Amino acid sequence: MQTLQVDLGERSYPIYIGAGLFGRPELLVPHIVGRQVAIVTNETIAPLYLEEVKAALAGYAVTSIVLPDGESFKNWQTLQQIFDGLLEARHDRKTTVIALGGGVVGDMAGFAAACYQRGVNFIQVPTTLLSQVDSSVGGKTGINHPLGKNMVGAFYQPQAVLIDTASLVTLPARELSAGLAEVIKYGLICDAPFLAWLEENMQALRALDQAALTAAIARSCAAKARVVGADERESGVRATLNLGHTFGHAIETHQGYGVWLHGEAVAAGTVMALEMSHRLGWISSAERDRAIRLFQAAGLPVAPPANMAPEDFLEHMAVDKKVIDGRLRLVLLRHIGEAVVTSEFSREILNATLSADYAALVDRLNHQ
Amino acid sequence: MQTLQVDLGERSYPIYIGAGLFGRPELLVPHIVGRQVAIVTNETIAPLYLEEVKAALAGYAVTSIVLPDGESFKNWQTLQQIFDGLLEARHDRKTTVIALGGGVVGDMAGFAAACYQRGVNFIQVPTTLLSQVDSSVGGKTGINHPLGKNMVGAFYQPQAVLIDTASLVTLPARELSAGLAEVIKYGLICDAPFLAWLEENMQALRALDQAALTAAIARSCAAKARVVGADERESGVRATLNLGHTFGHAIETHQGYGVWLHGEAVAAGTVMALEMSHRLGWISSAERDRAIRLFQAAGLPVAPPANMAPEDFLEHMAVDKKVIDGRLRLVLLRHIGEAVVTSEFSREILNATLSADYAALVDRLNHQ
Repeated sequence: MQTLQVDLGERSYPIYIGAGLFGRPELLVPHIVGRQVAIVTNETIAPLYLEEVKAALAGYAVTSIVLPDGESFKNWQTLQQIFDGLLEARHDRKTTVIALGGGVVGDMAGFAAACYQRGVNFIQVPTTLLSQVDSSVGGKTGINHPLGKNMVGAFYQPQAVLIDTASLVTLPARELSAGLAEVIKYGLICDAPFLAWLEENMQALRALDQAALTAAIARSCAAKARVVGADERESGVRATLNLGHTFGHAIETHQGYGVWLHGEAVAAGTVMALEMSHRLGWISSAERDRAIRLFQAAGLPVAPPANMAPEDFLEHMAVDKKVIDGRLRLVLLRHIGEAVVTSEFSREILNATLSADYAALVDRLNHQ
Repeated sequence: MQTLQVDLGERSYPIYIGAGLFGRPELLVPHIVGRQVAIVTNETIAPLYLEEVKAALAGYAVTSIVLPDGESFKNWQTLQQIFDGLLEARHDRKTTVIALGGGVVGDMAGFAAACYQRGVNFIQVPTTLLSQVDSSVGGKTGINHPLGKNMVGAFYQPQAVLIDTASLVTLPARELSAGLAEVIKYGLICDAPFLAWLEENMQALRALDQAALTAAIARSCAAKARVVGADERESGVRATLNLGHTFGHAIETHQGYGVWLHGEAVAAGTVMALEMSHRLGWISSAERDRAIRLFQAAGLPVAPPANMAPEDFLEHMAVDKKVIDGRLRLVLLRHIGEAVVTSEFSREILNATLSADYAALVDRLNHQ
């Protein structure tokens, strides 16, 4: 097991990472304050892990709240199910909400914990690679609005994050790949040596080697914890975590929530950000192509969907949270391992990036 | 004009109080960060004061969001109207939300500001006495749930509170009285000399004497700011602000939101808390009766509704936020000017308090 600390002053908390941690109640119990616990999970995860986690909570009054599975349910109606479950079982202000599932469960359970009686205790138990390396660390919670993704939410830190890498055995291969998109992202924005490690270990990760997974998750969480510790509320450096996300969100929104997985959209969006960074003269075509090959090795799409025109991107990007006072800000790479948040680019470079022929670029790579 | 400071470290903010402040843009403008402003108000207040406040915001892109008026609309559907308005007008993370109205508008606009893009800038402009002396100060925001009042919300501090006492000229007399219930409360829990001042000045307050109103509001806000500054998230002394509220919430819930005004329910609930404090031997019957007479002078009900049995109170109080681990905690008076939060009372004393004949008590007082 590896233990990391997210350093946020009085809101600091540990992340436990390793195989078989669901069977270790001594990790969970010190972070529960009252006698009531609500486990929020979904219909896919409940039959796999709910009983195992409940078994670690002997002696507590446990309420299970099972949500429908999928990003399309990340909305107020589903959030309301959590409030209904808490109120019907008369949970008081000292209750502890445990999120058991992927990013959607974590975002909604965390937002519910932030809002229930104006804030109750919260623990993240992420079961997908994406949520283990990204959404469970850093305190972003929320729901989608018909007019935009994650438009309603809160910054709310958990008391602890418990990551059992064995839970990835039941994760569909496509979702494992989607999680690897964020793992690769950490290498690109702030840890160039990790990129080389990933090139070495990508097959072990996809084969669910538990030691490799623990190492990759710990290194990803450490990168995220560093960035979040320096900038909890995203006024500066934290925004670099959104490499590929502005383009990616446009893809997700345009295709309809859930058609592309978040990590898939981030992979294709990151390729666009790399292309733009190259067009600005910041990274070489070889560096761009190296990243594209790593995304491909992870089993990820590396080009935006064929049905999206530049205007589609521009329309969706105009309501993105990274739009400040009407100016579009993007996360781009100054070098491999060094991201910047910038609005210092010409409209022409942006348009050229949106109009580039990614299919042809990938095709050339595949035949080199 | 009086200016107070709510002392909460980096979340500190000023409260401006006086007649005619809507006409002084120099008070509002320093607290706006970006170029976008959303004024959230309701159908009653919009025709009275919306243009006046907009006139103080020349040069900003102002969106007006007009909600239906009333506690019965303090729910997710109405909150959604705020998010819709912000997103349709493409407000970004630097927008400023201004709440112009009473406590319902302030609670909902504040919660919307807390959640919109995970938190944007917020200013309170309360137009009812109740919201001026209570809900606009201290950062409690939220909405009701069918199973309980204020069950979903956030602690979220404004950048500033602007109180124009002239706005009370258009407030219905019944709502002015409801606000006076909370004013009297501050005297009871922490400022005994203020009670004597109120006995002297009650008629001037009800006649809307602007100097008397400024003085009473400032003294109330100062009391609240002291308590909130000592305990922002209500882990201790802040709970004393809820004198009469546990009984009062039961009255509001049982009668249906909006049938009794909040301040009316608090007045009757406070009389019950005084009766219980007397039965515990803490305050004399003369002290209890003095407070009852002051509530009467303010034009407030001093007995719970005739249709509520002790069981009705017990049922509603069981899901109150002040229930910790199943034990009922109540705010009671050890002395006039000194409140305590306690669960140290027998079930018999509570039952006797719920069963007391308040109508007869009041009748005796009226004939003394």
